Amino acid sequence: MSETIVPWKATIMSLYPDMFPGPLGTSLAGRALEKGLWSLDTVHIRDFAQGKHRNVDDTPSGGGAGMVLRPDVIGAAIDHVTEVGDMRPRILLSPRGKPLTQEKVRSLKEAGGAILLCGRFEGVDQRVIDSRQLEEISIGDYILSGGELGAMVLMDAVVRLLPGVMGKVESGEDESFESGLLEYPHYTRPTLWEGQEIPEILTSGHHGKIAKWRKEQSIELTRLRRPDLYEIWKDGQT
Amino acid sequence: MSETIVPWKATIMSLYPDMFPGPLGTSLAGRALEKGLWSLDTVHIRDFAQGKHRNVDDTPSGGGAGMVLRPDVIGAAIDHVTEVGDMRPRILLSPRGKPLTQEKVRSLKEAGGAILLCGRFEGVDQRVIDSRQLEEISIGDYILSGGELGAMVLMDAVVRLLPGVMGKVESGEDESFESGLLEYPHYTRPTLWEGQEIPEILTSGHHGKIAKWRKEQSIELTRLRRPDLYEIWKDGQT
Repeated sequence: MSETIVPWKATIMSLYPDMFPGPLGTSLAGRALEKGLWSLDTVHIRDFAQGKHRNVDDTPSGGGAGMVLRPDVIGAAIDHVTEVGDMRPRILLSPRGKPLTQEKVRSLKEAGGAILLCGRFEGVDQRVIDSRQLEEISIGDYILSGGELGAMVLMDAVVRLLPGVMGKVESGEDESFESGLLEYPHYTRPTLWEGQEIPEILTSGHHGKIAKWRKEQSIELTRLRRPDLYEIWKDGQT
Repeated sequence: MSETIVPWKATIMSLYPDMFPGPLGTSLAGRALEKGLWSLDTVHIRDFAQGKHRNVDDTPSGGGAGMVLRPDVIGAAIDHVTEVGDMRPRILLSPRGKPLTQEKVRSLKEAGGAILLCGRFEGVDQRVIDSRQLEEISIGDYILSGGELGAMVLMDAVVRLLPGVMGKVESGEDESFESGLLEYPHYTRPTLWEGQEIPEILTSGHHGKIAKWRKEQSIELTRLRRPDLYEIWKDGQT
């Protein structure tokens, strides 16, 4: 008997469900989707709108620009996709959220799936965020036209970690990145290119010296480019 | 005579050019693409590979897992898409990069376009990063299967700021987010939903008090959820 694979299960709520799977339908994530290592369902938020005009949004209470997604519509959509006993995290992609990190990606992978609500910039009524216990996650400190690309980024990051998606060798390399430092510079053939050689140490065959050089390069790059990560790494060294 | 629009010009180098425009072909970015407010060209990196096997990558010099994109292939691709006098920034999407911020998005918008190289996790030969002056940008502290989603995120963030893409009212709201604080909670109709009212102050009609309440909510949310942003904001207040 073959081992039973329980696919990582994503459910998307969006005003643009046709965007999915999109880029996740090809390459690594696409092959994993075909192999049944993960699954993707989408629901259209508009299907849960009521009344003649089927409005999903309305003007902000207290005034201001833009529109806000209605709590009754979003609440109905969430309740529809959440089966009894469904313990998957319910996530709202939003620039107000906690930043997505690789650590969070790993915990979402372990959770077995996620329900993802693609927000719009103007926002979602706070009452439905509270009552349905939505966790707000941001993929970065910039503003997108909607949460759809954020959902794709989150899923891509999770899917590549699922068993069977990548070879063991590649997965191993992650761990090294996750040391808290940026990666050292890479070089490959040709050895001489446009008059530039590969750093001599890399072709020396001294594995210990190579490892030491790479570590030093990682530390220096992190210090220059990401002083925030460098400080956290340095604190962990003492 | 009508005003001449110079479209914001994106050129993508990727091993998966068919992923584009993908999600950027619909919604806000898709309509802007149809209206000619921005343009998108893609080139396939493999078209610049040489030899019988048309390899684009090779093993890392000095050992280690994964593959590294070759400098000759990437150099040829960059030279092909860069016309004489093309001053657009050349960007490599990579987890080693500087984090993308809304400030950077605005400067890329002003630059009139961008040449975007979609990296792979294992990396690009450092010599071509240096010689072609590639700027490494990361969309967040997590690992993706490739730079394609990063390129889409960057373009989506830029495109929504281009003149004619959004209404003036919506653009105005950005500025408020860009105060350095997270957005206050939003509410909309129905006024009573599942027994929960909208906070009384928002229906009071006192615009001054509403603005003060929203500011306080923004400050408190930022302090709790993003102490990093809160500290920067607080330093700017004194």
